[in-house]
Amino acid sequence: MKKLIEEIKTPNDVKNLNLNELENLSCQIRNFLIESISKTGGHLASNLGVVELTLSIFNQFDLEKDKIVWDVGHQTYVHKILTGRLNQFDNLRMHNGMSGFPKRQKSKYDSFDTGHSSTSISAALGMARARDIKGEDNEIVAIIGDGALTGGMALEALNDVGYNKTKMIIVINDNQMSISDNVGGLSSYLNNLRMEPKYNKLKEDVNHKLNESKVGKNIAGKLSRVKDSIKQLVVPSMLFEDMGLKYLGPIDGHNIAAMNEVFRKAKMINGPVIIHTITKKGKGYDLAEASPCKYHGISPFDAESGKIIGKSSKSYSKAFGDAMVELSKKDKDIVAITAAMPDGTGLNEYSRLFPNNFFDVGIAEEHAVTLAAGMACGGLKPVFAVYSTFLQRGFDQILHDVCIQNLPVVFAIDRAGLVGEDGETHQGIFDLSYLSIIPNMTIIAPKCLDEVKILLEYALQKNSPVAIRYPRGGDVIKGLRPLTKIKDGKWEVVESGGDSKVAIISVGKMTQHSLLAVDILKELGVDVMVVNATFVKPLDDTLLKKLSDERYKIITIEDNILRGGFGSSVLEKLNEYDFKGKFKALGYEKFIEQGNVNILYKEECLDAEGIKNEVLKMI
Amino acid sequence: MKKLIEEIKTPNDVKNLNLNELENLSCQIRNFLIESISKTGGHLASNLGVVELTLSIFNQFDLEKDKIVWDVGHQTYVHKILTGRLNQFDNLRMHNGMSGFPKRQKSKYDSFDTGHSSTSISAALGMARARDIKGEDNEIVAIIGDGALTGGMALEALNDVGYNKTKMIIVINDNQMSISDNVGGLSSYLNNLRMEPKYNKLKEDVNHKLNESKVGKNIAGKLSRVKDSIKQLVVPSMLFEDMGLKYLGPIDGHNIAAMNEVFRKAKMINGPVIIHTITKKGKGYDLAEASPCKYHGISPFDAESGKIIGKSSKSYSKAFGDAMVELSKKDKDIVAITAAMPDGTGLNEYSRLFPNNFFDVGIAEEHAVTLAAGMACGGLKPVFAVYSTFLQRGFDQILHDVCIQNLPVVFAIDRAGLVGEDGETHQGIFDLSYLSIIPNMTIIAPKCLDEVKILLEYALQKNSPVAIRYPRGGDVIKGLRPLTKIKDGKWEVVESGGDSKVAIISVGKMTQHSLLAVDILKELGVDVMVVNATFVKPLDDTLLKKLSDERYKIITIEDNILRGGFGSSVLEKLNEYDFKGKFKALGYEKFIEQGNVNILYKEECLDAEGIKNEVLKMI
Repeated sequence: MKKLIEEIKTPNDVKNLNLNELENLSCQIRNFLIESISKTGGHLASNLGVVELTLSIFNQFDLEKDKIVWDVGHQTYVHKILTGRLNQFDNLRMHNGMSGFPKRQKSKYDSFDTGHSSTSISAALGMARARDIKGEDNEIVAIIGDGALTGGMALEALNDVGYNKTKMIIVINDNQMSISDNVGGLSSYLNNLRMEPKYNKLKEDVNHKLNESKVGKNIAGKLSRVKDSIKQLVVPSMLFEDMGLKYLGPIDGHNIAAMNEVFRKAKMINGPVIIHTITKKGKGYDLAEASPCKYHGISPFDAESGKIIGKSSKSYSKAFGDAMVELSKKDKDIVAITAAMPDGTGLNEYSRLFPNNFFDVGIAEEHAVTLAAGMACGGLKPVFAVYSTFLQRGFDQILHDVCIQNLPVVFAIDRAGLVGEDGETHQGIFDLSYLSIIPNMTIIAPKCLDEVKILLEYALQKNSPVAIRYPRGGDVIKGLRPLTKIKDGKWEVVESGGDSKVAIISVGKMTQHSLLAVDILKELGVDVMVVNATFVKPLDDTLLKKLSDERYKIITIEDNILRGGFGSSVLEKLNEYDFKGKFKALGYEKFIEQGNVNILYKEECLDAEGIKNEVLKMI
Repeated sequence: MKKLIEEIKTPNDVKNLNLNELENLSCQIRNFLIESISKTGGHLASNLGVVELTLSIFNQFDLEKDKIVWDVGHQTYVHKILTGRLNQFDNLRMHNGMSGFPKRQKSKYDSFDTGHSSTSISAALGMARARDIKGEDNEIVAIIGDGALTGGMALEALNDVGYNKTKMIIVINDNQMSISDNVGGLSSYLNNLRMEPKYNKLKEDVNHKLNESKVGKNIAGKLSRVKDSIKQLVVPSMLFEDMGLKYLGPIDGHNIAAMNEVFRKAKMINGPVIIHTITKKGKGYDLAEASPCKYHGISPFDAESGKIIGKSSKSYSKAFGDAMVELSKKDKDIVAITAAMPDGTGLNEYSRLFPNNFFDVGIAEEHAVTLAAGMACGGLKPVFAVYSTFLQRGFDQILHDVCIQNLPVVFAIDRAGLVGEDGETHQGIFDLSYLSIIPNMTIIAPKCLDEVKILLEYALQKNSPVAIRYPRGGDVIKGLRPLTKIKDGKWEVVESGGDSKVAIISVGKMTQHSLLAVDILKELGVDVMVVNATFVKPLDDTLLKKLSDERYKIITIEDNILRGGFGSSVLEKLNEYDFKGKFKALGYEKFIEQGNVNILYKEECLDAEGIKNEVLKMI
């Protein structure tokens, strides 16, 4: 007999299932997810958490016309299973395989591409307004986690939707954690809602009674039960209702019947509705329930024991975290800021050792940057550790609050360059461009793990804005000799080269690729110079002028978009020197899709082979 | 006898004044502001609104150690008067004169440079945490308008401060308007607080009574007065208090005694406090009270009649607004979005004619961009009209939500290039760089007012992201012949030039400067080609290749930072063509300070004279 999970071909098949079948199906989905993700890796805990929520949505809405926008989007595996993509899970997050995020190009049921946090309410509101202007009739649902709700743009959107009373449904998927612990006033607020569902019942009672004529004693009786202040008695949903949104909840996000009921109710309300669901990340898989952080986004693992398969070498994140710990022991003015990424940025140990100097602001990159600016004004040495792709959110703050005032804020930019499996939305391939256009900004990059500390040390004493960018993962080549002294704006000649008069100038990890290319080239009898551009900004004028004067052919290599990037900077400078030789910049020219980074480097000709070929073309 | 206003030399002089003197001083300041700003122009209404608030702060805090962060910053004229800068008002906002914004470099009493909205709470929180880590003892005050409070980063910061309970004071300067009408759920919420101050009294009473033992009848009596629901009865301050902030107010922001009292109270609270003050923009100057929008930031005017001195020609904003109206009459799918700038972006008439297609989201650029993306998904043709400098806030959303999905959103970028008197924080000189690095983005610019409509028409049918950028103000040269047809990626040869083999390729307004230079050059017998780069991205490959092949010397001119800008794009392309001629890019290399734009163009060699000189250097 065919399993139910295999019989779902279109989303509306789920509409015809009864409660029993839905619950059955939820078990099958959960088992499938654990088994499948244990092989491919992926976001496990968040998807286990939304099995029933997704089923209820598919049961209650008509996905042929209704639109569902999943915030962040890595929790859409169940959605994918139910929209005819069950058989694509073998290639989940692989090169040319199925994305781990919604993709409009791939399915008509994916209504908005997400990736970065906190965008869903804005996007869904846009769709709802389009529907109203076009006189169409369908439901729009945004599903947003409690963590994503702290992102400023989500609050901007709530502010708009509440005021204009556009009909739409916002589901808060409240699992009491974003990627790490959740922080902030909103979180405490949600916590209050969560802990005291009886207050909502009470609210209804009180409201009801107030509308009767003789109310005195009844209300007084209820009021006197309250301990601390009147605040706790009434309407914990008021924050949202004050903003003009009808609040329903909290409800158990693993209870399909209850959710079906609340969605039925919500559809009948002619205005914006917030549905507050409580879910458990990792639900149904004990290991993931116990460590949702570990199973947030993971590598392949053994489904039985939960053990991650394969081992990782030391990462740049770890090197950064270690350096922070070491330097902070000597300097009490150093503080670290993260936007909900203490784990990913390598700051866990730091946060334990220096709790008073560690600030997790939640998903709030804009605030994080300007907070750092304020701290710098107050005489501290703030280091904002952040993924390259997420720092894009703070672009205006970097320019306007940090760089115009030339404040000593250090940006420790992790996951710079290709990150791989998360695809277009997460590749960190724009930072060299968007940072280098900002006056007063210094940009540096370690050529190997062992340079992270000395670069951080340099940045902390620089007394102006400095960005250190380094890649996801660790070194490709071991044993490179790290710089022991950083000179302002000086590059390092790593290979002096021979008669070829070709110089490769590369940034960070690309220097390792260049050195691998050199090995191949040497076998072919070609001996090229390799320069590591420790400084992406400012450039090493002296060395560059020398290369120009000596009529070198120059190749730049960066793990970044070409437009406006490092190579473009070098070319601008060479033009000043009236350089008349050959110049070629290697990097990216488009958004880069998902896949193993080594496959992607190869495709984009940034691996040793690709670099070798460029050199051969040039000579 | 010397006036009191002239006797204030340091801020702490204000501490010694009694209430009578403070009120006296407020009159003198108000008169001074009206008289002074009528001569120089500047932000009048907002400064008239904070005279008493500023005096109270100076009276109650010790500015030698306490730090005051003014959000946006254009309301700091009173602060400047009280910190020894009374005699600099003659040069307000002029080249080399006093800035209209706080500048740390200029006064030790200016604790943070502001300009863009909604940054103050983050910055002040950073300072408060620095104080705590360093074990210092001072007060930190952020003053933020009700409009700025809708900006996402302000909410991110509130979320952080409320949770961590850092001691600081946040003053909401609630004047019921940001630049135009205020919008959003928060605004309704503040309105409720404002309209019903008696509820706060009631809250205290109720709280008090609840803590007694026999409370029944008393509370019941109060409760039964409430009409609609229990919600209206209690604690309108709950939104803030739910977020962990102590709420004090609302209080009359023109009543110095009342404010002194509340500041004294606030200082004693060991945690974050919100003080809600109600002020009136333009207070004390009837004309400005009646039209605060007109007197928000104005040109010199006649203090008696309020009439603006001098006349303005047609602006690009007006041309854009007219084009929107005209095109929307034929196409009901066009919608316009503004982030609190319907006036400035020229959308006033549009908003009257097409109220259902017009969306003012408040100060919320991030949300605005993704809202547009959602609307595009829903089949609308959204146009986000925004100042160049403010669009920086939406950088990640442009990249992540619009361009990765290649959605047809039009960005109508006003105030691109130098804006003049507002200085570094407001110059729109980065957009060509930060937009051109994003794949899928098309960037176009009209060479004259009369091209705005046809470019907008082009953008609306393009079916992918398009940015149209145009400057503040109007045309320098009248009577230029507008294009009547736009061809994808094609430039326009405006002057064919002679034997000089010099080609100027310029963008937008800079083409007008180039043509002025051509006139001078012709008198000198030098005849150069002028190309208007209608498309900044993509470039006109064919024309550029031809210029390269024919060994033209090339000068690019842009009202933008050089790094990563238009010239940099052209150079990247020329390098592909193996161009060996001379190339020079004109633009900016640093943040550009305040001043009349014509003075600034001259300084930066982007006026006709500067361009002429570059041409002569090249030949």
